[in-house]
Parts: sequence; structure tokens; C-alpha cells
Amino acid sequence: MPLVRFDLQKGRSVEEIKEIMDITQEVVIEEFKVPERDRYQIVTQHEPFEMNILDTGLDIERSEKVVVVSLTSRPRKKEDVEKFYQQLAEKLAAKKLVAPNDLMVNITINGDEGWSFGYGKAQFLNGEL
Amino acid sequence: MPLVRFDLQKGRSVEEIKEIMDITQEVVIEEFKVPERDRYQIVTQHEPFEMNILDTGLDIERSEKVVVVSLTSRPRKKEDVEKFYQQLAEKLAAKKLVAPNDLMVNITINGDEGWSFGYGKAQFLNGEL
Amino acid sequence: MPLVRFDLQKGRSVEEIKEIMDITQEVVIEEFKVPERDRYQIVTQHEPFEMNILDTGLDIERSEKVVVVSLTSRPRKKEDVEKFYQQLAEKLAAKKLVAPNDLMVNITINGDEGWSFGYGKAQFLNGEL
Repeated sequence: MPLVRFDLQKGRSVEEIKEIMDITQEVVIEEFKVPERDRYQIVTQHEPFEMNILDTGLDIERSEKVVVVSLTSRPRKKEDVEKFYQQLAEKLAAKKLVAPNDLMVNITINGDEGWSFGYGKAQFLNGEL
Repeated sequence: MPLVRFDLQKGRSVEEIKEIMDITQEVVIEEFKVPERDRYQIVTQHEPFEMNILDTGLDIERSEKVVVVSLTSRPRKKEDVEKFYQQLAEKLAAKKLVAPNDLMVNITINGDEGWSFGYGKAQFLNGEL
Repeated sequence: MPLVRFDLQKGRSVEEIKEIMDITQEVVIEEFKVPERDRYQIVTQHEPFEMNILDTGLDIERSEKVVVVSLTSRPRKKEDVEKFYQQLAEKLAAKKLVAPNDLMVNITINGDEGWSFGYGKAQFLNGEL
């Protein structure tokens, strides 16, 4: 937790995608203060026409390298979320993986009972986590 | 915002899928009163067996043209949501893109802090939007 | 309702995937007390590198058979959710479809107005459901 979904266009190398996943996980750990192995990531690659990502009039140019990152998470502090966005954009840009204008992120909140990490247990409810 | 995901079966033409996306965006703009470029759409195409969409006993026949539209959005008024469903079904049917019995829609709500449209900023929090 | 998404790695047979869907639906019906035809399931198959599912330090071993089940649902009682996790893990394991260590589940809650099952209607609002 969080569960992190990446939607991106086909054309990137496996290595590139893995790096995006790695960097994102680094930022998740750092900003949301989760354990290192709190990693749940799913990538879906799309044909170019399958993604139509504009900018709400914010004048943000998108390229074929656009990435939509969708998190499902227990509640997070507003300041941690803002820091997460900022750090994710900065670190993905520093590695030339995703330009800041090509990064869209959205977060949906769920509750403690919304997670079973294995063995049919609700680990946030039964005391394991 | 909203983020709109389309899940549908393989077999439609690219043109047809693009039209579905266009019409949906028109209805989003009209019913949710968002800017024209407030467009964030992602399509995933599936093998027929990968989608099993029934009807909760409502006696709705589904075909291989079934489309599931999943929105993530900030809160919307109930009456706007109902109008959105109604208009989306009507307009997709008028263009013979999706029959009213083949359209399923679901909406999940998130908050202002749940959106970063680019540059690592939370544009609903920092005054840009 | 609920809408159930399955993310899994390529390599399973169609028959196997269908069985996973069937068993899951059985458990949805039983634990959430929904009608038999309240079935809305979508599968997405991924390349191995596209899924990186660890364990939050819970010491849960994952294999290439890992399955992430993501539900969107109206509110459910905590005890029903826990029973759902437990029964799903048990029944998928009994059929040797998904080992208990390879099953991750997450649930996101939405409201009555968040569902249109067809014909552009909001069936939880208009009295049909």
C-alpha cells in the first residue's frame, strides 16, 4: 500500500519502465514513510490513441512519453501528498525518464479494511500491520 | 479531471474508439461544466473472455460491444451525475457507437489534493485551478 | 456491483482465468449477498516485469501466479469484507488456482450515485435496485 498503477504509451524499453517503477517506489517510501517492501505496482502499456491526456487549460505540453500514475492509498496528509508529487516529478525528470510536463498523478483514498496483502487476511485490521 | 477509463473488447476500429472517447469528452464538458481541455482518458482493450459484464438481474442484454466507463472525479452533484449517465447513453447510441444496453458507468470520488496534472504540482491546492 | 478488476501475469490458460473469475463471483455473491447476475469483472494480463508486488515486510512469497483483485463497491460491513478475503483465498487455493500467498485484494468504496448499469440510468437512485 499504496497500490500504484502506471498507464503509459508503448515504445519505452523494459529497462526504462523498470526505472520509472523503481524511482516511484523510492519516492513512495520517502514521502509516505512506508516500509521498503510496501511495493504494489502495476503497469499497463497502451497504443498512442488509447491515451488522450490534455491539461485543463494549464498550458502543459504532453508528448508520447506521458505517464499517468494512479494511486489507491489509505489517507495521507495533504503536505505529504504535495511533497510526493513534487519529488516524483523532480526525480523522474532528473533521470530523464519522465519530463515534468508528461507526469500526471491521481490518488484515491480507501480505508484500513480495504487491504488484504495475502493469505486472505486483512492485515491492517488483525494487528499484523 | 475527471480521469476516465474505458474497458472494451477488441474488435472495434481505432476510429470507432476515438469517437467514443470524443463523445464522452463532450458529455463530460457539458454535464460537469469543466474546461474543454479537462480531458484525461485511458482505453484498455480486452479479449472477450476478459470481460464478464452481467446485469444484476435488470434484464439488460450485453453484446461484444459492451463498454465499461470508470471515472475518478472530485465530488459531483447527484443531478449532474444522473444527467451525465443519461446524456452519455443517448449520445453514444445516437452515433451508433454503444447501444444503451452495452454501457456501464461507475464513478469513484476523490479530493482536491488527489490531483497533479503536471510539473509535480497539486493544481487544485496551489490556486492554479 | 462490485466492479472487480483482476491484474495477473500472462501465462495462465483461458480456462484457468475463467475459473478464477467464476470462483471470485461465487464468493462475491455469498459474502456480499448480491444477486447472482451482479457480476462485473474485468481482467488485464501483464508482462512479468509490469507487476511488482511485494509484501510490506509480511514475509509473503510471491510467484509468477500472483493476482491482484481490485474491487470498487458501495460500502460493505467490515466483517463481510474480512470474510470475503478469507473465503476468496480459501476457495481459490482449494481449486489450486491462486495460492494464498499470491492473492492481494484491495477495495475502494463509492456511493449509490456512482453506478449506471445500462440505459443511462442510475439504478440505485431510481428505485430499480
